[in-house]
Amino acid sequence: MHTTLRSRTSTVVIGHDQPFCIIGERINPTGRKAFAEELRGGDLSTVTADALAQVAAGADMLDVNAGIPLVDESELLAAMLRTVAEATDVPICIDSSVIEALEAGLAVYEGKALVNSVTGEDERLEEILPLVARHGAAVIGLANDETGIPETPQQRLDIARKIVSAAGDHGIGPEDVVIDPLAMTVGAATDAVTITLETISLIRDELGVNMCLGASNVSFGLPRRHQLGSAFLPMAMAAGLTSAIMSCAEEVVSSVRAADLLLGHDEWGARWIAVHREREAAKAAAAS
Amino acid sequence: MHTTLRSRTSTVVIGHDQPFCIIGERINPTGRKAFAEELRGGDLSTVTADALAQVAAGADMLDVNAGIPLVDESELLAAMLRTVAEATDVPICIDSSVIEALEAGLAVYEGKALVNSVTGEDERLEEILPLVARHGAAVIGLANDETGIPETPQQRLDIARKIVSAAGDHGIGPEDVVIDPLAMTVGAATDAVTITLETISLIRDELGVNMCLGASNVSFGLPRRHQLGSAFLPMAMAAGLTSAIMSCAEEVVSSVRAADLLLGHDEWGARWIAVHREREAAKAAAAS
Repeated sequence: MHTTLRSRTSTVVIGHDQPFCIIGERINPTGRKAFAEELRGGDLSTVTADALAQVAAGADMLDVNAGIPLVDESELLAAMLRTVAEATDVPICIDSSVIEALEAGLAVYEGKALVNSVTGEDERLEEILPLVARHGAAVIGLANDETGIPETPQQRLDIARKIVSAAGDHGIGPEDVVIDPLAMTVGAATDAVTITLETISLIRDELGVNMCLGASNVSFGLPRRHQLGSAFLPMAMAAGLTSAIMSCAEEVVSSVRAADLLLGHDEWGARWIAVHREREAAKAAAAS
Repeated sequence: MHTTLRSRTSTVVIGHDQPFCIIGERINPTGRKAFAEELRGGDLSTVTADALAQVAAGADMLDVNAGIPLVDESELLAAMLRTVAEATDVPICIDSSVIEALEAGLAVYEGKALVNSVTGEDERLEEILPLVARHGAAVIGLANDETGIPETPQQRLDIARKIVSAAGDHGIGPEDVVIDPLAMTVGAATDAVTITLETISLIRDELGVNMCLGASNVSFGLPRRHQLGSAFLPMAMAAGLTSAIMSCAEEVVSSVRAADLLLGHDEWGARWIAVHREREAAKAAAAS
């Protein structure tokens, strides 16, 4: 199953037979105090810088979030989306929990966006899916609902199935529903990652839809987070994860591209070898 | 199921509920011309150095191989095993395709060794299993036989089952048979790793025995091999691999310990955090 996202000029395809889709997580003021202050003052220069840096580091798409307390999120999100679209041509994941902000974002977005996100809660489904359908977008569906975050893979699958079904009722095909199997922090629960991996396998086998998760969650509160992300993503990819909102740190991106090769999504290692040669050439140029 | 290996003074337990068992691959003259020449001349200093370096880098066990053309492998292997046992106290994986060398190695080894290896070939089983049983050792069983290396996970499982059964006939329990699911190079076959991963899952589900593979094979002929190993091992561990004969390069060892944490084999990240603190302390000491 292929989920196709578009900017004005470029296309990204997420699929189980495709290289992994890296969605840069950085354009998000949550936990970034200085960035939040800049945005509050109308300074979008870091948005541009972060967009360029993440794409240079290997991002296939960018997540854009404008959630700052006491700020008009609709207006800010629209401005940030325009800024990112001027800086880069990758498709965008429009990230907000506020319906009006998603609406404002979709109104200014040129292309086919990924809406982040809906949950399995009836009210959220009824509010967000019509918006997604009207704009011909795709949507991330979180595998939690009114009862919270389910502990078992089977319960998460049940919610995923409900979201796919509700989307269908609104004319959104399963190819435009990207399920988030939920990655919790392993520092708080020893079985957090094994539950996520089992959920991914189950959703792949039962629903066959694409999946996306926030990969940095797993290492929250632990040291050497990039190293943990680098070990987590290949596991999740082998289980069937097809995209992630994640750090674009060099070692994490390299780990994803290594896993692409190992899983047969980089035939004969052509991309891997090309990146290696570029680096060697850059090193040689720097040394001469 | 627990496979227990012992040196004279220390014990290692391999199991699905245990941290991954890292077996250092380095003490092997194959493809190491200078090392082979040293060994041929009776110089075992690199054996000592490699043993110490690998244990310092995190090896739980060491593989020792003495295969050099036109050299008395029995004599050399016995000498190398004695040298390693003097330098370190980790259990050893005695690695040879020559029965007499395995016999000589087992004769000098103090503890419970891992014999590397037997295959599913009738003749090899009848030669090697009595030796393993007589010395109370454990054995690695390669999932190939007279017909070569099977392409499908099911065929590899069938051979693994045959080896476990033959071992039982010789009084060797399944806990002392460690199956090698075979890792081929992904540069030669795009589906090499996915077949290995499926084989690992299948053997875990059907036989429940421990498994060990030569992890460096997968990246043969490709650039940035440590990075590929770092992505491969977490995938294989999530599928059920419990040990590997592998590089002890820092990034590969770190990746395995990260995967231990993620898979719930390092509760609350105690080991991960302790290693981090040691490094920080070492850095601070170096800077002061």
